[in-house]
Amino acid sequence: MKRLLIIGIGAGDPDHLTLQAVKAIAAADVFFIVDKGEVKHELVQLRQDLIQEHGRAPYRIAEARDPERDRTTPAYAAAVEDWRARRALACETLIRDELADGETGAFLVWGDPGVYDSTLAIVEQILERGQVVFDYEVIPGISSVAALTARHRIGLTQVGRPVHLTTGRRLAQEGATADDVVVMLDAHCSFAGLDDFTIYWGAFLGTPDEILVAGPVAEVGDRIRALRAEARERKGWIMDTYLLRRT
Amino acid sequence: MKRLLIIGIGAGDPDHLTLQAVKAIAAADVFFIVDKGEVKHELVQLRQDLIQEHGRAPYRIAEARDPERDRTTPAYAAAVEDWRARRALACETLIRDELADGETGAFLVWGDPGVYDSTLAIVEQILERGQVVFDYEVIPGISSVAALTARHRIGLTQVGRPVHLTTGRRLAQEGATADDVVVMLDAHCSFAGLDDFTIYWGAFLGTPDEILVAGPVAEVGDRIRALRAEARERKGWIMDTYLLRRT
Ligand SMILES: C[S@@+](CC[C@H](N)C(=O)[O-])C[C@H]1O[C@@H](n2cnc3c(N)ncnc32)[C@H](O)[C@@H]1O
Ligand SMILES: C[S@@+](CC[C@H](N)C(=O)[O-])C[C@H]1O[C@@H](n2cnc3c(N)ncnc32)[C@H](O)[C@@H]1O
Repeated sequence: MKRLLIIGIGAGDPDHLTLQAVKAIAAADVFFIVDKGEVKHELVQLRQDLIQEHGRAPYRIAEARDPERDRTTPAYAAAVEDWRARRALACETLIRDELADGETGAFLVWGDPGVYDSTLAIVEQILERGQVVFDYEVIPGISSVAALTARHRIGLTQVGRPVHLTTGRRLAQEGATADDVVVMLDAHCSFAGLDDFTIYWGAFLGTPDEILVAGPVAEVGDRIRALRAEARERKGWIMDTYLLRRT
Repeated sequence: MKRLLIIGIGAGDPDHLTLQAVKAIAAADVFFIVDKGEVKHELVQLRQDLIQEHGRAPYRIAEARDPERDRTTPAYAAAVEDWRARRALACETLIRDELADGETGAFLVWGDPGVYDSTLAIVEQILERGQVVFDYEVIPGISSVAALTARHRIGLTQVGRPVHLTTGRRLAQEGATADDVVVMLDAHCSFAGLDDFTIYWGAFLGTPDEILVAGPVAEVGDRIRALRAEARERKGWIMDTYLLRRT
């Protein structure tokens, strides 16, 4: 039997790695890397550093090129599904050709594998196709949400109150659906106009480029927009997450 | 200046500890423990084990008794606030008397300190009272939510969809407020009747007593109720969390 480990590596700080993840990395014979030939050099670099530091030689690295995703269509979910299907094929090929029976392969997943990540769905898709058989295990990781609240030293939740986790797209469509809303995958600062909220914003959390801003949206919104644009320009990409809390 | 570390220790598995948390534990001169003289032996034990394994001698342990919380009143938030205020006083006394200037004190917090935990609010309350001054830092941890989804090998979120995190009390009052709802702090199996949902349930996640059940609520609800009652009876306490996903 082939064995697969889906390992959450945390949201940017190499020390976000759990002891369980360290052991999982040490147990892997092959690391699978499916990349976009990215501009996000640091992300690729962090993964390589973690493998180098915690991998137990001899290990192999097997790479595939990530299919392009159609970012122009308004049909977001459909575009993601299509991209996932093609990505699943690339992963299936890797698992079929590069992992022998009795060996352990690993995918290192940014943050927590459960939070807005496609790896688990892809693995399910591969198993459903039935072309390759394996067992797999998921190792939880520090998500950017946990990193955000820790760095701002705030609770994600208030006593007995709910919190909603959503995307920038949804926030733009639906507005704030609760008194506490965490927003990810927001390319457009969709918090604009939510003037009865306090925002806790973080970019590049856990990395040397980390930026934190907190305050009423009406007061700090413009500063966040400016910082975000400037950082994105400087680095060529950005990752940011924020919590909105009704003031 | 006194320094305080609020360290997330993960949700039950000692290997949930992050490298950052390992370093933080090693940096502490004093560990503060505020306990209820609990029946939850294993929880107390895990904390002691982590200190023993990762603490760097000489370190001290300073303990206080947790004030009782009124669990009979329907005014949940008020009862929690009152308990917090008294707990804050107990912590303030510890920090004032047991931590010298230049030293580092640590609170080890179950799961992630941001998720339904009172420690951060208590620290804020102490600082607001102004009787004792210190700097503090928060180390994120693997929450029971991350542990739950990892063990069930499912995503917390679906593509581009929101997820709500709430309490058993709220679920009982409001029903399911989204297609994906995570429920914590539920003493009453408040998923009853949500027959158009699939439930992913986990108790004692990350521990040797871990129990996992998944399936349509209509099919597995009774089994979860029975398992939960039996485990609670056997151990004297229970911790469980679940994700409801509309089928
Ligand atoms: C595809 S999702 C992956 C999330 C990841 N699985 C997690 O647990 O954080 C990418 C989004 O995560 C958030 N994100 C990930 N890492 C981040 C970081 N270091 N700082 C700020 N936001 C981050 C951003 O909202 C980004 O748009
Ligand atoms: C006071 S809250 C603390 C949550 C914690 N800060 C976290 O991040 O998981 C306690 C609730 O967390 C959940 N919980 C904590 N640890 C758990 C575990 N090991 N297994 C299942 N549920 C757990 C249960 O819903 C429990 O009622």
